[in-house]
Amino acid sequence: MCETFNTQFVLAARPVGLPKIEDFKLIRTPLPRVEANTFLVRNTMIGLAPASRIRMSEGPSYTTPTPLGDVVYSQSLGEVVESAHEAYAPGDLVVLTDGGWQTYVLSDGSSAQKVDTTIAPASVWLGVMGVSGFTAYAGLMKIASLKPTDSLLVSAASGAVGSSAGQIAKAIGCRVVGIAGGQQKVAHVRDTLGFHDCLDYRSDTFADELHTLGGDGFDVYFDNVGGPVRDAALTAMANFGRIVVCGLISEYNNTGKATGPGWMPILTKRLSVQGFLMRDHMDIREAFYRDMSAWIRSGKIKVLEDIVEGFDSLPIAFINMLTGKNFGKTLVRIG
Amino acid sequence: MCETFNTQFVLAARPVGLPKIEDFKLIRTPLPRVEANTFLVRNTMIGLAPASRIRMSEGPSYTTPTPLGDVVYSQSLGEVVESAHEAYAPGDLVVLTDGGWQTYVLSDGSSAQKVDTTIAPASVWLGVMGVSGFTAYAGLMKIASLKPTDSLLVSAASGAVGSSAGQIAKAIGCRVVGIAGGQQKVAHVRDTLGFHDCLDYRSDTFADELHTLGGDGFDVYFDNVGGPVRDAALTAMANFGRIVVCGLISEYNNTGKATGPGWMPILTKRLSVQGFLMRDHMDIREAFYRDMSAWIRSGKIKVLEDIVEGFDSLPIAFINMLTGKNFGKTLVRIG
Repeated sequence: MCETFNTQFVLAARPVGLPKIEDFKLIRTPLPRVEANTFLVRNTMIGLAPASRIRMSEGPSYTTPTPLGDVVYSQSLGEVVESAHEAYAPGDLVVLTDGGWQTYVLSDGSSAQKVDTTIAPASVWLGVMGVSGFTAYAGLMKIASLKPTDSLLVSAASGAVGSSAGQIAKAIGCRVVGIAGGQQKVAHVRDTLGFHDCLDYRSDTFADELHTLGGDGFDVYFDNVGGPVRDAALTAMANFGRIVVCGLISEYNNTGKATGPGWMPILTKRLSVQGFLMRDHMDIREAFYRDMSAWIRSGKIKVLEDIVEGFDSLPIAFINMLTGKNFGKTLVRIG
Repeated sequence: MCETFNTQFVLAARPVGLPKIEDFKLIRTPLPRVEANTFLVRNTMIGLAPASRIRMSEGPSYTTPTPLGDVVYSQSLGEVVESAHEAYAPGDLVVLTDGGWQTYVLSDGSSAQKVDTTIAPASVWLGVMGVSGFTAYAGLMKIASLKPTDSLLVSAASGAVGSSAGQIAKAIGCRVVGIAGGQQKVAHVRDTLGFHDCLDYRSDTFADELHTLGGDGFDVYFDNVGGPVRDAALTAMANFGRIVVCGLISEYNNTGKATGPGWMPILTKRLSVQGFLMRDHMDIREAFYRDMSAWIRSGKIKVLEDIVEGFDSLPIAFINMLTGKNFGKTLVRIG
């Protein structure tokens, strides 16, 4: 049933700026022993998210950094292979919030969630039915209090959270404009995901086009990237616009000071800016499952996965995601 | 009763960066004629506010810029000298929101407010009983929903709005820490205004002291300055802290890009940031007059005025205020 070893990537060094391959080290450790009220999961897929980068750095944040030498933090999908826990049996499929970059993980169930493949395929529980989709849902519904009459601007529109946010807003009836990097992503967001429009932030005419598309200004900006794209978006907001700070991928690798236009639009447009973390909003999790499964069934939400093969690919897949080379939710298949 | 001429400062050039004396031009024009439903006011005092700088620049903002050649926008205090308006009679003291840098002004009453010197001396109606005090009150009460258990950090603590904000918060029972520029202002804020503490942002140890004083972090930051001081304050906030963006004096003169640490603390601390303009909150104006007059009577709010003599001093007084040379509300006496 099991191999003898657990294969793991541990954090070998704290990345300075963009992580390098050498910041991660492949090791083999003995398989953890299943004790009372625990169960062993064989990971089959690792779900990558830009926010994991935050845990690789020291300094104050919302969470303790991963100690050097510890397994790299990540979500995983896997199958229970041995259990001494009454709620989990061999064969159960689970998503583990802290499954980590490893082939096996021992769980006490506290960060586990069973996967219901009658609602969506297993991998989707790492994406739109998982943290990515729930993050988009909580940010729009609870933080921005999105209404059908709102116009929404969303950055990283082809990413896991951005593509969910735009499609949720569309399902609700909003006008949705995306921002993505490169013409291939822009075309995908516009033509496949069906956003009303999408702009390429690498284009020389990006800022002008943004203002043209924004008209009197966007009511809500769902920000996944921070940095210069956010700064451009700030100036394209409507008075009393709402900005949801969901992610800041362009700032995660910063080693020095960022540059920006200052906060003048926040003052003159009376904007509200709200940072949030998905984990503070578990009270709406049931509503999310209900709504999202209905949207997936009706085809209103399309699932976009960027599947990379092989455990050894984890570091490069993570680095590629941080530099925007992915297309949808980055999943590394290791089964 | 009246001179023959109206003496005015008009905007001669749009300032680039910090305004220069030559950006303003002194002219004489005929006195305006009093027609039906208007009245003529002889200005005795001009109240200066940093936000007037915003109107001197072109580009999108919350208000139309002052056209070149027009009188410089400002509040004024004056006496009605001639009236064809049923609600105003010669001898009435009024504050005019748009009184301007001029010796006389014709009003239709729409931006006028009668001054009640039984509550506070006339000049105070340009300061803590006027826009400065009301701005502080609206920002704390309505935008930040200040509670007695909150700790408050306030920048430009010796300025007109900052000194009002800190004293209002103290009157409510909050712990209040100020930020000011230079030891003289710091001592004043701590010893005379009675803030619990005050820090000098020019000190090399400012950021460290801010974190020490903040303890687990400030609940509310009332920002009047923006720029590097705001960036330091961001990192000293408590989780779920609230930031009121009232003013950005350090950014008003910006011609290029500002620098800053990015928005990471907004995300990781789940901060809320809310820009606001006093004029959107007139619904609480009566509550303000009631509370502020009680606080002034009981000595809980001290009035701090920096009075400059002579109409010709207007440009230099304005420039000095923008560079932080003032001490309390800057008033130019022209009577």
